Amino acid sequence: MTTRLFKNARIFTPVDAGAPAAGKDQGNLRILEQGALVVENGLIADLGETDAVRGRIDMGMLDEVVDCRGRTVIPGFVDPHTHLCFAALREAEFDLRMAGTPYLDILKQGGGILSSVRAVRAASEDDLFETSERHVLAAMRLGTTTLEIKSGYGLDTETELRMLRVIDRMGRETPLDVVPTFLGAHAVPEEYRGRADAFVDLVVGEMIPAVRDQGIARYCDVFCEEGVFSIDQGRRILAAAREAGLGVKIHADEVHDLGGAGLAAAMGAASADHLLAASDGNLLQMAEGGVTAVLLPATAYSLRKPYARARHMIDAGLPVALATDCNPGSSYTESMPFVIGLAVINMAMTPAEALTAATLNAAYAVGMAKTVGSLDSGKQADFLFLDGDSPTILAYHAGVSPVAAVFKRGARVF
Amino acid sequence: MTTRLFKNARIFTPVDAGAPAAGKDQGNLRILEQGALVVENGLIADLGETDAVRGRIDMGMLDEVVDCRGRTVIPGFVDPHTHLCFAALREAEFDLRMAGTPYLDILKQGGGILSSVRAVRAASEDDLFETSERHVLAAMRLGTTTLEIKSGYGLDTETELRMLRVIDRMGRETPLDVVPTFLGAHAVPEEYRGRADAFVDLVVGEMIPAVRDQGIARYCDVFCEEGVFSIDQGRRILAAAREAGLGVKIHADEVHDLGGAGLAAAMGAASADHLLAASDGNLLQMAEGGVTAVLLPATAYSLRKPYARARHMIDAGLPVALATDCNPGSSYTESMPFVIGLAVINMAMTPAEALTAATLNAAYAVGMAKTVGSLDSGKQADFLFLDGDSPTILAYHAGVSPVAAVFKRGARVF
Repeated sequence: MTTRLFKNARIFTPVDAGAPAAGKDQGNLRILEQGALVVENGLIADLGETDAVRGRIDMGMLDEVVDCRGRTVIPGFVDPHTHLCFAALREAEFDLRMAGTPYLDILKQGGGILSSVRAVRAASEDDLFETSERHVLAAMRLGTTTLEIKSGYGLDTETELRMLRVIDRMGRETPLDVVPTFLGAHAVPEEYRGRADAFVDLVVGEMIPAVRDQGIARYCDVFCEEGVFSIDQGRRILAAAREAGLGVKIHADEVHDLGGAGLAAAMGAASADHLLAASDGNLLQMAEGGVTAVLLPATAYSLRKPYARARHMIDAGLPVALATDCNPGSSYTESMPFVIGLAVINMAMTPAEALTAATLNAAYAVGMAKTVGSLDSGKQADFLFLDGDSPTILAYHAGVSPVAAVFKRGARVF
Repeated sequence: MTTRLFKNARIFTPVDAGAPAAGKDQGNLRILEQGALVVENGLIADLGETDAVRGRIDMGMLDEVVDCRGRTVIPGFVDPHTHLCFAALREAEFDLRMAGTPYLDILKQGGGILSSVRAVRAASEDDLFETSERHVLAAMRLGTTTLEIKSGYGLDTETELRMLRVIDRMGRETPLDVVPTFLGAHAVPEEYRGRADAFVDLVVGEMIPAVRDQGIARYCDVFCEEGVFSIDQGRRILAAAREAGLGVKIHADEVHDLGGAGLAAAMGAASADHLLAASDGNLLQMAEGGVTAVLLPATAYSLRKPYARARHMIDAGLPVALATDCNPGSSYTESMPFVIGLAVINMAMTPAEALTAATLNAAYAVGMAKTVGSLDSGKQADFLFLDGDSPTILAYHAGVSPVAAVFKRGARVF
């Protein structure tokens, strides 16, 4: 057992009141100008103003005292929506997309999500791990200490199970906490073209039982969108997943308002994600149902789309979280600082609201708030040093990460 | 004399035809799939496909052969518009600005550009150097190998001369080439409030002669905008600067179309910068006058403003360059990769056009194209390794720099 005191830190953290922070609470940070953290075996044993903490602890018991010299300290980021497990980038496709080539034409030329499926199916488990690990470690150096990773580039039972094993291994062989999500219903695979219902039968009848038996995935997600899966198909899949003991999430109303946000509320989902087209009524249902809105501004940026209505959602009492959506198609970025910048500049969130969205609310969105997402006694000592006076630096320093150091369970990992 | 061969590089470079690349030429890159560079004493001695270069050189004369293993290689970035020499950040002001506080209220509270003037006037030459050096080195790690830095936070003769000394020292004590620009007419200082003409008298009668005698500045710039300096005042200052042997540049038509772009054309300026409000007619005059348009998308981003019409300018035959505008108020970023991303995503430039804008055309905008800005025999060996298959990665990897290595005059500096 080692005990360390981090003193003279400017600590900024959201306050965990037992639920995601909503409405005015989303922008309420606890600020300790001369703060201190006591870390015991990777957990926060005490937290407060340095003088008060000194008075409470036995200084003789400390193994180390770290003087933070006024450095800004915030919780490590939780990235609650990524597709970080993939085998190949799609750089040439980006050129086509920027030149205005329609997505359907890109699909015809062998691009799009199904090209990622082909690459993942062809990759060995070790190759897939090595490729994905690079992105996980890049995220870590940018301040992410916990992240969710979805399967969904397999679209057959064997490859989906393999992806989940790789994702699980990522949590065991890197310093980060990783939350695995099964996303078998990410797209209709080529071999089921025009037979989406038959593919849903496969997801429900074969994949979900196999995923349950494998015992790795914590959530099941589904992509509800015109031309992908309908609300009825989504409901069928998520009901089966819940039956199998998985938490549920939805890619909801990204392009068309199919009612995915309403389905998330009705199913008691942990989160509904994207939400660019969600209706006011369904957003209110989400707020009443305790569903966190996970917004993905880097996807809107990369696709040149309008941003989700974060300001409206927060003002309507809906807890908002932020994620990278890291994937090789619509959002190739591991950077939570970049996402926070976009949220402040392009979605009119305050830097404090964005910090809560990238830590506490994100932790709730992936069921990890008991252990991470804020600096509170009993939680893991996952925190960052920032080059700046406050979390504002994350948006103010445009396009440059101000993350100067990353600590995971009290150990410096960057 | 040392000679090194860099082989097996995927080289992408704009082609220097003796003028900034305009129209369709802006997007025309020379691509060497299996390229090689011969570097002799910091200069490019030869360039071509690896096999051809091998045939031309005496391999026994080489001191070192570097196998680039297929790495993407591009010229180092030239950042042609920065205010990187400053004494203090303005992080708290960013919060006010994001919350919608009008700039005039920020000025009343002691913020804005005049707060930077107070900080620079109070800083010692050494302190100013150390603060600014951090930003220069940050820019270098993000791929910038040549940059322009403006004075303009002094606004009195003594402090302007001190800033230029610090800027000059930045070019001698860091690996980068630095182009110093005198911007005495950046704002009307507090002691001249309401007496802009008297301040212009000072700039013309005292500052410009002193700057000429000091012999450091290569350009003179002026901020023409409503409430700052008029076109007539700008013309007077730039005419005096030209008389004193300085090149000229203009902050033109950022908010209001005062005709700054037209003045730039009439004066034969090296560049007109910002141009968000410039009229079609004046842009055409710039194209005819050989004036490069320097666009600053990170400023539009940070100020939540519409972006300059890059697509229209390129299609109209105007050579476009890109710059960070790095400053503590309207654009706190040192990142040319971030600027290139914004140019592609938000200004519809192609990745190839953006690369030319950030290298060759930027070099022309600061009078450095004879030595930097493209990979050509006889120019400096300033180049970057990128993590990716092509310059597209600069926009595709959103908010994350893909610059893996930086070489300045053949020496690795990052």
